[in-house]
Parts: sequence; C-alpha cells; structure tokens
Amino acid sequence: MARNITPRKENYSQWYLDVIKAAEMADYAPVRGCMVIRPTGYAIWESIQAKFDAAFKKTGHVNACFPLLIPYSFLRKEAEHVEGFAPECATVTHAGGEELEEPYAVRPTSETVIGYMYSKWIHSWRDLPVLMNQWCNVMRWEKRPRLFLRTSEFLWQEGHTAHETEQEAREETMRMLGVYKDIIENELAIPVLTGEKTAGERFPGANDTYTCEAMMSDTRALQAGTSHFLGQNFAKAFEIQYQNREGELAYCWTTSWGVSTRLIGALIMVHSDDDGLIIPPRIAPVKAAILPISKDESIAANDILPKAKELSAKLDEELGGMFTRVDTDFHVRPGDRFFAHLQRGVPLRLELGEKDLAAGTVRLVRRDTGEKLDVKNDAVIPTVKQLLSDIQSNMFKRAKDFREANTHDAASYDELKAIISEKGGFVRAHFGGTPEDEVRIREETGATPRCILPGDNRGKCIITGQDNARLTIFAKAY
Amino acid sequence: MARNITPRKENYSQWYLDVIKAAEMADYAPVRGCMVIRPTGYAIWESIQAKFDAAFKKTGHVNACFPLLIPYSFLRKEAEHVEGFAPECATVTHAGGEELEEPYAVRPTSETVIGYMYSKWIHSWRDLPVLMNQWCNVMRWEKRPRLFLRTSEFLWQEGHTAHETEQEAREETMRMLGVYKDIIENELAIPVLTGEKTAGERFPGANDTYTCEAMMSDTRALQAGTSHFLGQNFAKAFEIQYQNREGELAYCWTTSWGVSTRLIGALIMVHSDDDGLIIPPRIAPVKAAILPISKDESIAANDILPKAKELSAKLDEELGGMFTRVDTDFHVRPGDRFFAHLQRGVPLRLELGEKDLAAGTVRLVRRDTGEKLDVKNDAVIPTVKQLLSDIQSNMFKRAKDFREANTHDAASYDELKAIISEKGGFVRAHFGGTPEDEVRIREETGATPRCILPGDNRGKCIITGQDNARLTIFAKAY
Repeated sequence: MARNITPRKENYSQWYLDVIKAAEMADYAPVRGCMVIRPTGYAIWESIQAKFDAAFKKTGHVNACFPLLIPYSFLRKEAEHVEGFAPECATVTHAGGEELEEPYAVRPTSETVIGYMYSKWIHSWRDLPVLMNQWCNVMRWEKRPRLFLRTSEFLWQEGHTAHETEQEAREETMRMLGVYKDIIENELAIPVLTGEKTAGERFPGANDTYTCEAMMSDTRALQAGTSHFLGQNFAKAFEIQYQNREGELAYCWTTSWGVSTRLIGALIMVHSDDDGLIIPPRIAPVKAAILPISKDESIAANDILPKAKELSAKLDEELGGMFTRVDTDFHVRPGDRFFAHLQRGVPLRLELGEKDLAAGTVRLVRRDTGEKLDVKNDAVIPTVKQLLSDIQSNMFKRAKDFREANTHDAASYDELKAIISEKGGFVRAHFGGTPEDEVRIREETGATPRCILPGDNRGKCIITGQDNARLTIFAKAY
Repeated sequence: MARNITPRKENYSQWYLDVIKAAEMADYAPVRGCMVIRPTGYAIWESIQAKFDAAFKKTGHVNACFPLLIPYSFLRKEAEHVEGFAPECATVTHAGGEELEEPYAVRPTSETVIGYMYSKWIHSWRDLPVLMNQWCNVMRWEKRPRLFLRTSEFLWQEGHTAHETEQEAREETMRMLGVYKDIIENELAIPVLTGEKTAGERFPGANDTYTCEAMMSDTRALQAGTSHFLGQNFAKAFEIQYQNREGELAYCWTTSWGVSTRLIGALIMVHSDDDGLIIPPRIAPVKAAILPISKDESIAANDILPKAKELSAKLDEELGGMFTRVDTDFHVRPGDRFFAHLQRGVPLRLELGEKDLAAGTVRLVRRDTGEKLDVKNDAVIPTVKQLLSDIQSNMFKRAKDFREANTHDAASYDELKAIISEKGGFVRAHFGGTPEDEVRIREETGATPRCILPGDNRGKCIITGQDNARLTIFAKAY
C-alpha cells in the first residue's frame, strides 16, 4: 500500500485525483471525458441515493424511467433550452445498421421528453400534481473532464413536477431545495448556503433557479444541487394542458430539480485530508473496519479472528445493517492495513491485538481526528455508536467553521477583486447587475455570483451603484 | 374507469398491451422502439431490483458503473461478439458540436469495456475473484418493439466476474443461475426450467450459456435470465492477465449474467387475467388497498377514513414497510374504485363499509381468486398476512400446473412438428443437431430449442438419429 497522495498545499488538483485513486473510487474510462465509478465510489453513491430516494418518496414523489434518447426537434421547442444544451450534446445518427431520419440527442436533461409525456397523461385538475423523479445517466460533452465534477456522462436524479397553480409549483421548488439542504447538511455533513441564482446562472428554460452552494477545502464554491421553477415555459412548448376546476383548459406550472454524482466530488473536497478520503459516518458504506492483528499470522487467524467476527456481527445488528468489515489481510503489514482503511475514509478503525485481547479491551481510532481510545470490551458497542455520532457532528462543524472563516464582505467592486485575488473564499456583496455584468466580473476576477442570499439585506450594487441590490455570494467555482 | 381489456382468448397480444395500459405500467416513447416505464411499472422494477441486489451482495458481489458508450474497436476484439451485436447497435458519431474521430456504440452489453478495465485493475491472484455488477440501461435497436419484451432501450443488471481457475468461473456461472431461479420462482412466483442453451442460442462470445425458461399463459416460452461461462475469450481479447500463485502470467476465466425489465413482461404474461394485472404479494409495491366506502361521501371521509388509516398504519408496521394504500377517491363510484385496484394487480382489497363498521368486520377480497372473506376486526392482521402468503403459493402453483399441463414429449421430429402446430407449449425431445439444424427447425415449426435439461436422460436425436443426444425443451418463444 503506497502512501502516494500529493499534499493539498502542494497541488490541490493532484491531491484530489490522488485521493480518488488511493481509495479506488473511480478511473477514467476509455471513452473521451467519461469515468468508471469503482465499487468504493459506487457504494457511496448508493448510500447517497438511498437517503434522497427515501426523502423524495416521503414527500409524495414516485420514480419512473424516461428514454435515453431525445429527438432534436424536442430540444428546439424551448428556445433558451436548446441554446443552452445543444452545443454539449452527443448525437446518435445511426442505429440498427441504418442512418436515422432524425438524429437523437443523448439526454443532457429530460424536461422536453418528460413534458411531451406529461401532455399525454395529464387531462384534468384531478390528475395534478404529477410528482415524478428518475435516477439515470445523462451526457454533456466535456472538453476538460474531472472525475466526479465534470464528466461527459454522469449519474443523477431529475425530479419533474406539474401543478395546477403558480403558487404550488413555487412551493414545490422551495420544498425540494429544502430536502436537498437537509440531506446534504445532515447526511453528507456538507454545510450549504441556499438561495436564488442570478439571471446569468439560471437553468436554460427556467424562470428561477435555486441552488445549494458548498465551499470546498480550497475555498472554491461547488453547486451541490439545484431546484428550478420553470413557470409555464415547458408547459407551453409541449402543450401540457389540463381542464381546471372551472372546466377551462389551462397550462400547468412545472418544476425540475436535480443532484448528481458531483456530490461525491464535493464530499471528497470538503472532508478529506492528506491521508486520503474521509466519509461522514451516516453516508459511509463501511462505518467501522475491524482488524485482528498479530505478528504471528496463525494467532490472528485462529485466535483473534473469531472474536473480531463476533464483534462485527454484534455491531451490525446494533447499527441496523452490514456496516462493519473484518479485515483479514494477514499477509499485509499492520501499518499498511491501517493505511488502507485510512485512505478509503472508513470513519472508525477497531484494532484487536494480542495485548488488547489480554487486557479485555479494543483500540478505537477515529479517522477524522486520529484520536485513539482503548475501550473495555463491554463498552465497545455504545462507544462506537457515540463516536460515529461525534465524528458526524465534528465533520459538519469543521466544514462550517472553515466556510465562516473564509467568507468576507466587500463594499465595492475593488474590494471584491482584492479579496478574490488575495484570499479567495466566499465574498458577500450587493449586486443588481445584468448577465453582461456577470460575464465581466468573471473575466476580470474569475469569480461568479453563486447565490443570492435570502432575507431582508438589500443595499447599493457594487457594479451599478444602484440601490436595493440583493446580497449575493461571489466565488471562484468548480 | 373503463374496463377495456381485450380478452386473452380473443387476441393475446392486444390483451397484453391492454393490461399494461389499464395498469398504467408503460407507454411507447416518442423515440423509435423505446418505452417509458410509468410509476406503477417502475415500482415493480424497484421491487424486483431490491430482491436481486440483496442476493448479489449476499453472494459477495459489489456494484459499479461503467460507461454508456463503447468504442467500436472494442466490440471488434471478440469476433463472435461483434458479429452478434454490431447490427443492433445505436451509434454516436458527433458530440460537443464535432464529428468524433472514432464512433461509439451505445452499449448493447458491457463485456468489452469491463474487460478492458479489468485488465488495468487485475494484477495478481490476490486481486481475484473480481465480482462486480451494474444496474443500467442498454440499447439494442428493435425493428418490432413490444413493451417490456423487446424495446430498443431497456433496463437490466449485468454481472461480470473474473476468476483464477476454470472451475471457479464455472461454479460462479451456476451459482448465479441458481440465484436467478430462486428469486424468479420464490419472489416473482414464476416457475422456470434451468439448463444449458444449444450452440445456436448461445450468447455471442460465450463458451456456454445457461438459461431460466418460463412458460407464458399462451404456452410460449420466455427467456427470463441467462448466465454465461465466457471461458478465456474476453480475457484473451482484452489481456485480462494476472500473476498466478506460481509467479507466472495467466489469463483469467470470466463470466457474465443478466436479468432485465423483460421480467416485468413475464410477470404480466404468467399471472394476469382478463381483468388485468395480478402481482405476486412478495413483489407487489402495494400489497393491500384499503377502501373506506359509503354512499355518503362525508361519512366515508369523516367516519370511516380514520379507521382505514389506522388499519393501514398497523398493517404497514406488521408487514415491515409502506405496503398498504388507503383509497380516498370518494368521488368515484365504488365499483370503479374496486376495478382500479383489480387492474393494477393489488393482491388484496380491504373494503370498509358502513355495514362492516357496524358488524365489527372488514371484507377482504383476493385478487388471484376473487374470493371474499368477512373477517372480524381483531383477526384482520393475521388473516391478511396468511392470505398474502397463500396468494403467493397459489400463484406459483397455478403457473407450475399450467406449465406441466402444457409440456409434451416427442419421440420424432414429426411428432414435435405436430405438437407445436396443434397444441403449442413445451416439447421435450432428444436433440444433438447443429446450429444449422436449429435454423431448419425454427423455419419449419416456429419453435427453437429453449434449454437442454440437466440430468442423465440421453437418447436418440430426433433430427440426426444419432444416439446420446440430450433431452431438450423446444417451444415458440418471445
């Protein structure tokens, strides 16, 4: 087991790739810009999926499956939508040995084809609301791919809902933003700011886009999930009409919202350190690794292993799932075995050596702090449960403190420029400019408006000087 | 609620489509040959997935995610494989606004790209076995699509494993065939025959293919799952080599195995009747529908609904999940409400009317037999549990009896021809012919060899007259 992770301070991008490689989370695929998600990474995705899926179902949503391919004529029905997505699409031109009459786009997102189906299914106000979600792969061709953050193919969920009234659709948009914030903060231990996107950062075809913005450990921002109020744009483009309570034909109001495997990139960049990955316990597929250890391989395998297995079974029962692993790599040196679990981000390591056995104790080692505790056998289970809970809160607090420490206020554009170039991080400033102003800020500073903070906090725009501008977070972003 | 299902005897194909439509399980998509799986259908797929996924994990497999696109050069590395799949592929020729240097196939199956990745990951015998699975979409262009049975895009799982020895790979092939049979029979209540495929029916690139064959209610066969022993074919094509225990470089032995959304088609065709879908209780997303009923809508909503909700909560707790639904469509006539649940295949209907309330009983109605039982309140929960178990066994027994009644023996080719044309069903006959003989039989009878029955049952081939031919099931198939 090589300890070959570049330190964060030396080269952050390389550190990120090294963490992924050391944990065997993903690899580049032999397809331009695409990745393979390896079992360690995929198990984290399954864990993330389970949390979101349960929350979607609890809020009344059902899953469905829409086609991978989308006729180009569909994309063209919404002007902003096609302008935003067509340049990134992969195109199927041939199938079954023949050239197709009309080429298909591999879906970059599914508002159009889902809108088409909704127009067939929805007839009356009694059919509303329609609350669907799909877990699937999408494709947006990337010139500069980065594992989990920007790949030509990625996995995500896309929720698509249709409502009777504007108010219901707006409530749905905000409800799902809230669901995202809740899970990203309480399960992934990633603090996020939520708010509206500026006009230049909106989803192509949306009236309003809301976002969860997280700060990575290099102080850059990452958009961790978005929820869109689509107004009647797609309803009009695809004739999603229903007979309302007054017997008249009316257009639906629709929303869409999504999170993707990018969240794994965020998880890595928020929590990990120079030893590798650190996974928050509530998301970790393996919450505790149990290592029977002895210089004598046969003592480890014959005397200690049965006790390790017994402890593993008890813990699994207590934790309500197969959340522990017994490490039987006796042919590997103990230090290397420790490091394998460190690099894979397992929250707790339990060491069972001959001395521990004689003393009636187990050594517990925290991944987040490195702290070691020798715990009496009968206290192991409650201590493990307590520590997993402590690690979860500590990871969230650490990330939140880091964000607070790296958030600054700018009263003028010069101040914003200075902070971005000297300190980085999040910059709070009043902004009321146009999308053209946003382009200029990006070109001059590298930063973009990440989200408009909610609440009563208006002031003078740092660009236009006009009053009543909204308080906005600026940052360089992934 | 229209009772618009064509009777099975009148037009089996139309009956099948009507059942799907009435249950709102799927629709054709606006993409040639593709389908949309609607929430009722998708919930069944989620339920099927959960059963298989748990069994895969229990047998040591882990999930991963490989790319959607496959370079054509990969397909060409295994001669039989490219010959079998290239004609069915959809092709991506452009992406990101440019023509690609090499076109990609949308994966029809992933042996090639997974083989390529395995060659990078596997170095030593200590890395083996590698036991991976992926749940994903695949594409095989279909000229004559049928919902769930043959669509250009479908969902499936594909297991891919690599082993040190031929024996281990053969054991894995048979283990997974056994896992398939277990779940298809015990969860989906579909009896299957398992055995080897003849040479003409093998997976392109496999040494041996094993299959689970089910009989539909029109006596045709449907291949419900396959497990392939791939020998060293893909290992040699993709250089999947490892250093063996003797320190020498050796090729791995690999397997692959899959089940797909076709299983939903099988579920429909094995179990459903002229009233619509019937879902076996162990797979049913909704196991019991609870209907508060009164001519007076306000009595139903105010007096009966709370009792229905209470019963629903108790049952959900007892059944260990959200498996009941309370029907509040008070604006719909009771007969139509009953029919809605019939058509969707809900195994049990619980009716709570005013008379039932007064008598302290609940009326239970079985979907499989139509039997009605009035059960005292305190016996409802145990009776529901017992009935769900009875329905499950009854559905399996009914399907198995049907298969037995429609399985015949043929001692000669003439007899086989006569049975296929006059009675249909499964025909057992000794067969030792070539793939060319298989083509001739198909052309002359419409039947194909479905599977070679295991066991000591050799005899004289009905085609070649040679001894020692293996007992084989022939049938017309989906």
